Amino acid sequence: MTTAASPRPVVDGAALTRRIDELAAISEAPAPAVTRVLFSETDLRGREYVRRCAREAGLAIREDAVGNIFARWEGAEPSLPAVGTGSHTDAIPNAGRYDGTVGVLGGFEALAALRRAGFQPRRSLEVVMFASEEPTRFGLGCLGSRLMAGALSPKKARALRDRDGRSLDELRAAAGCAGELESVKLPDGFYNSFVELHIEQGPLLEREGLPIGIVEAIAGPSAYRVTFHGEGGHAGAVLMPDRRDASLAAAEVALAVERGVKLSGSPDCVGTVGVWRIEPGACNSVPFRAQIEIDLRDTRLQTRDKALAIIRDAVAESCSRRGLTSDWEEINADPPAAGDPRTVAIAVQVCAELGVKCRKMVSRAYHDSLFLARVSPTTMIFIPCRNGWSHRPEEYASPEAIETGVTVLANTLARLAA
Amino acid sequence: MTTAASPRPVVDGAALTRRIDELAAISEAPAPAVTRVLFSETDLRGREYVRRCAREAGLAIREDAVGNIFARWEGAEPSLPAVGTGSHTDAIPNAGRYDGTVGVLGGFEALAALRRAGFQPRRSLEVVMFASEEPTRFGLGCLGSRLMAGALSPKKARALRDRDGRSLDELRAAAGCAGELESVKLPDGFYNSFVELHIEQGPLLEREGLPIGIVEAIAGPSAYRVTFHGEGGHAGAVLMPDRRDASLAAAEVALAVERGVKLSGSPDCVGTVGVWRIEPGACNSVPFRAQIEIDLRDTRLQTRDKALAIIRDAVAESCSRRGLTSDWEEINADPPAAGDPRTVAIAVQVCAELGVKCRKMVSRAYHDSLFLARVSPTTMIFIPCRNGWSHRPEEYASPEAIETGVTVLANTLARLAA
Repeated sequence: MTTAASPRPVVDGAALTRRIDELAAISEAPAPAVTRVLFSETDLRGREYVRRCAREAGLAIREDAVGNIFARWEGAEPSLPAVGTGSHTDAIPNAGRYDGTVGVLGGFEALAALRRAGFQPRRSLEVVMFASEEPTRFGLGCLGSRLMAGALSPKKARALRDRDGRSLDELRAAAGCAGELESVKLPDGFYNSFVELHIEQGPLLEREGLPIGIVEAIAGPSAYRVTFHGEGGHAGAVLMPDRRDASLAAAEVALAVERGVKLSGSPDCVGTVGVWRIEPGACNSVPFRAQIEIDLRDTRLQTRDKALAIIRDAVAESCSRRGLTSDWEEINADPPAAGDPRTVAIAVQVCAELGVKCRKMVSRAYHDSLFLARVSPTTMIFIPCRNGWSHRPEEYASPEAIETGVTVLANTLARLAA
Repeated sequence: MTTAASPRPVVDGAALTRRIDELAAISEAPAPAVTRVLFSETDLRGREYVRRCAREAGLAIREDAVGNIFARWEGAEPSLPAVGTGSHTDAIPNAGRYDGTVGVLGGFEALAALRRAGFQPRRSLEVVMFASEEPTRFGLGCLGSRLMAGALSPKKARALRDRDGRSLDELRAAAGCAGELESVKLPDGFYNSFVELHIEQGPLLEREGLPIGIVEAIAGPSAYRVTFHGEGGHAGAVLMPDRRDASLAAAEVALAVERGVKLSGSPDCVGTVGVWRIEPGACNSVPFRAQIEIDLRDTRLQTRDKALAIIRDAVAESCSRRGLTSDWEEINADPPAAGDPRTVAIAVQVCAELGVKCRKMVSRAYHDSLFLARVSPTTMIFIPCRNGWSHRPEEYASPEAIETGVTVLANTLARLAA
């Protein structure tokens, strides 16, 4: 690898900012919030905007049966496995404008900058817009990348229903996505490497004053729904020894999630109870049912499993002591992914050559790269976002941070595609 | 006290059952559920039904400014303090048909049975239908009896607003209640004694196979709203040491409610967290805010205060350790009430003479008697209800249990009014 022949792509930060703002304006929620749910009217308009960007960048568009969009710059040796980049443009209700979109629109700008710099790729370069990274519509995130990686069977995908009972097949057909879901899975070795640019969604880079993080591991997310069944009654009339209060088991298990994560010994392990449904939910009624949703992630399956075992023990112990029954439902349990060492090293090297400080780091949020990593050497380029905020209207990444990220992405892609 | 001159009232159980069913049919919720919220259209129709029953029993009707209805059988010495009975007919959403109504309609039947038995009271007898025992409309229960007892100032009552922002004054005027709230407070010594018939709303009598409980103490209810303020964030991205998860403090405090009640040393103390509001309530978000409502009751203020102190310590400790702030709001804190020993003894004696087994017991639910006890010697007569269920459509008291309760009530009232 020499730097003599490297292109010197110059990113048009102003154009990119304008595009991010234009895409953000396609939203159900009023600005600064962004809401674009899979196959909603705003998502369809967002996809049309992505196609327009691809055309303006001179890229050839291909779309698959689940709505993943591929925009290709044909390389000098088009039969070689391609180099991919990209992310998603769907957004949970009341999200911000940077999560995902920076990777898609930044991918277009990276390729445009390379073209302006006179670069001619040997391998084809592709920008991917993944369908439904967010779980809003079907309760399961990364639909597009899961199917591409073969991590979700078409049969299971066909069984998905949204809150209105509509199926993925029904919605994708209405959105104009043709073909069978079986065709979404990528051929073996389709990508030579994949690099996703994304805001960090955490506070580390900002705190350390670093403009770039290179992802060497992606935490494996898992989620579980636990329902406790007890007995209700009047809060005044039922004496304490007679109680079977479902909410107190939920409280104990939520604290066990925190304890289990700590005892796992993994500094990367995180556990959260974000959803609490306590019934009947009246001040003067003993809760007869409690449902919580546990989110548990780690970069190592072994330590995540250790935390999980502690949590499951707590469910059993609390139910036994309180005379409750419980249902345990696994919503999803995805294994962690490792960043590809060679791809990581190239990205780190690019930063060094550009004089951009960076650190290797762990990604803890869900990303399409978690699934791409199963079928391609993969890494991610993180840029700082204010306070680590994401999934809220206050999400913010500065134009300078984005420009730096796209510059690192463009140079990394050039290195990989050369 | 002699039994020779005692009347032998015979309760018309069939007529009473018919009336309970007729009143239950006046409901917003479909049968078997009953919903009658203060000054709603069904409450107004329910009040009209109560007036009809009073007229059919030959009683003189008087109504006060907050909508309490008094139905009077003038005694031979009308200047003497009267003997009162009664309860409420409003019902929380999806309640049953026995809570409150058994005491109002049973009161009418007790007086009717006494009249049929040729009884002539020396003291006047009054059946009271208290306005808004349930807190549904204004968030504060026992509006009518609180004002009667001077336990709620007219000024505070005038400040009450329902969810639609409507004031008590506005609603009571629309319901035809005339006069100032100041006039609701009873003159000193208005009642010589007061006896409320009510379903137990707990499992004790059914479990012990007893038809009657005589209430010697009414637990003092209190309620508190605690709001924890932490910091949100992505459930994957924010590492455990950086978290300020508001829901975990709520969990700790809910468990401290249970612990505090236990450590209070009072077997009558009960504590419940029935309301949990966890925000934003998403599986992949760390909760930035948590609000719980604590219901705490005891027959002794000292032990209730001991439990409360443990709970407040837990709030402070948990917030300090977790870097949270909290708001503590007292919703209400009513002192316990003691049953009047003489009135209790008379009711127990009546049971013995009737050959009806009974026990003395504690009332743990809110009742209008909690406030009547402040201005009159008071007790309550409890009858068993199935499984202790109340505040739900499955609430059930058998016709036989109700008939026994009304028989004990009639004989007790006769003794008190003679």
